[in-house]
Amino acid sequence: MQFQVLQRAAGSEARLGELCTPHGAIRTPVFMPVGTRGTVKSLTPEELYALGAEIILANTYHLWLRPGAEVVKAQGGLHRFMHWERPLLTDSGGYQVFSLAQSSQVREEGVTFQSHLDGSRRFLTPEKAIEVQEALGADIIMCLDECIPYPASDEYTSEATERTIRWARRCQGAKMRTDQALFAVVQGGTSSELRCLCAEQLVEFDFPGYAIGGLSVGEPREAMLAAVGAVLPRLPAERPCYVMGVGAPEDLVDLVGLGADMFDCVLPTRSARTGQLFTRHGRIVIKNSRYQEEDAPIDEGCTCYTCRHYSRAYLRHLFLNKELLAYRLNTIHNLWYFLELMREMRRAVAAGTFGEFRREFYRQRQHHSE
Amino acid sequence: MQFQVLQRAAGSEARLGELCTPHGAIRTPVFMPVGTRGTVKSLTPEELYALGAEIILANTYHLWLRPGAEVVKAQGGLHRFMHWERPLLTDSGGYQVFSLAQSSQVREEGVTFQSHLDGSRRFLTPEKAIEVQEALGADIIMCLDECIPYPASDEYTSEATERTIRWARRCQGAKMRTDQALFAVVQGGTSSELRCLCAEQLVEFDFPGYAIGGLSVGEPREAMLAAVGAVLPRLPAERPCYVMGVGAPEDLVDLVGLGADMFDCVLPTRSARTGQLFTRHGRIVIKNSRYQEEDAPIDEGCTCYTCRHYSRAYLRHLFLNKELLAYRLNTIHNLWYFLELMREMRRAVAAGTFGEFRREFYRQRQHHSE
Repeated sequence: MQFQVLQRAAGSEARLGELCTPHGAIRTPVFMPVGTRGTVKSLTPEELYALGAEIILANTYHLWLRPGAEVVKAQGGLHRFMHWERPLLTDSGGYQVFSLAQSSQVREEGVTFQSHLDGSRRFLTPEKAIEVQEALGADIIMCLDECIPYPASDEYTSEATERTIRWARRCQGAKMRTDQALFAVVQGGTSSELRCLCAEQLVEFDFPGYAIGGLSVGEPREAMLAAVGAVLPRLPAERPCYVMGVGAPEDLVDLVGLGADMFDCVLPTRSARTGQLFTRHGRIVIKNSRYQEEDAPIDEGCTCYTCRHYSRAYLRHLFLNKELLAYRLNTIHNLWYFLELMREMRRAVAAGTFGEFRREFYRQRQHHSE
Repeated sequence: MQFQVLQRAAGSEARLGELCTPHGAIRTPVFMPVGTRGTVKSLTPEELYALGAEIILANTYHLWLRPGAEVVKAQGGLHRFMHWERPLLTDSGGYQVFSLAQSSQVREEGVTFQSHLDGSRRFLTPEKAIEVQEALGADIIMCLDECIPYPASDEYTSEATERTIRWARRCQGAKMRTDQALFAVVQGGTSSELRCLCAEQLVEFDFPGYAIGGLSVGEPREAMLAAVGAVLPRLPAERPCYVMGVGAPEDLVDLVGLGADMFDCVLPTRSARTGQLFTRHGRIVIKNSRYQEEDAPIDEGCTCYTCRHYSRAYLRHLFLNKELLAYRLNTIHNLWYFLELMREMRRAVAAGTFGEFRREFYRQRQHHSE
C-alpha cells in the first residue's frame, strides 16, 4: 500500500491524498460506507460504485460470528463473497466486543466475551483478530484495540491505552500476509496527554497508517475535536490518518480541516432506515405530515438518483408503509450526500478554497428546512 | 388500446399477441409483477425494465386507503408518483375488500367495509372503483367484481355472479377518461355453467379486454384449469384475456396453452421475501444448511444479476441475517425466472414449438434439486 499527499490547503491542515491498494486507488479525504455483515444495507456494489464509493468497511466481529471467517475464506475471501471489487477495510472486532457482546472480560492475553447471537463464549486476542482479518482478506486491516467508554477513570484509561499499545505490537508480529496494510489505533480517551503518548509509541513501530479510535462514544464534540487535534501533529505526515466511527457532516468538515484523511460512520445508512435524510440545510424527517403532498425532492440541489426521480410525498408514502424501497432510496440519498460532501472538500482543497467551502457549508446550515 | 394476435401455436390454443397502450406496447402472453402500494417490493423501475417487465400491476384498495387517490392524482398520477414509465394496470379493489378488509357487507349498491389499517368505514361502489382508478391513471383498469370464496353455495355463487355482471355495466357507464381501457371480470366460482353465462353476458357489453377472476382462492388446480378452459372459448378471440392472481410456473405454462394472455401473481415477489427461490428443477429454500458453503448460484443456467454475481452461501448468509439486500437479490432472481419463462413461451409460440417447450419444462421439473 502506498500513500501520497498530493496537495495541502492554505489556512488549514486539510490535504488531498491518494492511497493505492491491491484493489485500486482511493482519493482522500475519503468517507467509507459501512457494510457491517458484508453488505452495505440495501445496496448492491454497482450502486455503491455509481454513488462514487471508493472503499467500504466491513465488521470483523459480525463476519467472524456468522457466517464465520473460514466460510468467507473458502468462498475466495470477502471481496468475492460480497461481489465488491474495490478496496475494502475491516476493523478488528474490538469495538463490537466492547459495545455489543455480553460479559466482556479483558486480560493481557485478550478479551473473552459471549456472542450476542447465541451466547457462545469466544476469545479474541490480537493474534486472532489478525488471523480472522487475513481470512477475510481486506486491503486494510486494523490492530485489536481496547475501546475506552466515556466517561472512564484515569486509571482505567491509562491501563487500556497501554494495553492497546502492547496489542498493536502483537498484531504486527502476528501478521503473515503481505498484501494487506495493517493500521494501528490510537486510544487514550479524552486525555490529550495519553492520546499523544499512545500516538508517539505506536509511531515507533512504524505502521503504514494510523487510526484514532474510541471517539463518538458519548464524549462532547469539543473533546472529540481536541483528541484528534492533539494526535494528528504526532503522526507522520506521510501516512494516512483514519478517524474511526465519525461522524456527522459537520464533524467531517472540521476533521478534514484538522488534516484527517479517512472516515467511516453508520450515520448516513442508519439514519436512512429511520427516515432521517440529509440536506445542505440540515436533516429532514420524512414521515412528517408536512410532506404528504410535497412534490419536491429531498434536496432541490441534489442530483442523486432518489432526488432526480422521487418526491418527498412518494418517499413519505414508502416509509410509512415500511416498503423495502424506502430504505434503499433513503440510503442512496444519504450516502450520496456524504460522498458528495467529500468530493466537494477534495475539490476545494485542490482549488485552494477549503476555507471558503467551510464557511459556505456552515452558512447553508443556518437555513434549516425543519 | 389495441390488441393484435400475431401468431397461434399448432396443437394448443397458445398465442402470441401485442397490446398497445398509451405507455407503450406489451407482448403477450405477459406476466405482470405486482406493485401493491405503487412499488414492486424492494425494486426500482429501472431494475424492472432490466428484468424485462413490460407492465406491472398496482392495487387500488391499498393506494385508495393510503396515501389516497387524490394525493396520487395531485402528483400527476401513479406513473409519475412511482416513476414508472411503462404500461400499468390497476385492479378494482374488490379482491382486497373481500379478502383483507374487515366486516365487508355487500349490497346491490356496493360494499361497505372497514379499512384494515385504521378500522374506518368505507364504501366501495362500481362508480367509486372507476373514480379512484381514473385518479390513479393506469393504462388498464378493472371493473369492480365480487370475488367468490371457495367453497361457496350455489345460491351465493349465482347471486354474486349476477351482481358482478350488473356492476360491470355500471363501471362501463361511470367511466369518463378515454385513455384507459376497462376490462370486465368473469366470475362464477367453480361452476362452468355460471362462468360461461357470465362471460357471454359481459361480452355483450363489448369490453376491450376480459379477465377471469376468483381463481387461486383455494380451489383444486383442476377446477382452476377447468374454469379457464370453459370461459376462454366464450371470449372474443380478438380481445386479450387476463387470468387474475395466477400463478405458479406450471399454471402459467398450462394457461398459456389454453390461450390466456395476461397474468399477475405475488408468488415470485412474496416467495423471494420468504427465501423460496425458483429454478428450472423446482423451488429451493435458501436458508437450508446445505447451502452454507455452496459456491454455486441459485440456478446454474440462469443469467440474472443475482445468479451472475452471488453464491448460494452468500444469499443464505444475507437471508439468515435479515439483510435488506437478501430480499432484493431474491426478488430479482424470482422475477427474472417468471419473466424469462414468459419470454421462452413467446419464443416457442413464434417458432411453432410450444408443445416441445411444454414437455421439456415438465421434464426438467422431475429433477428436483431438493
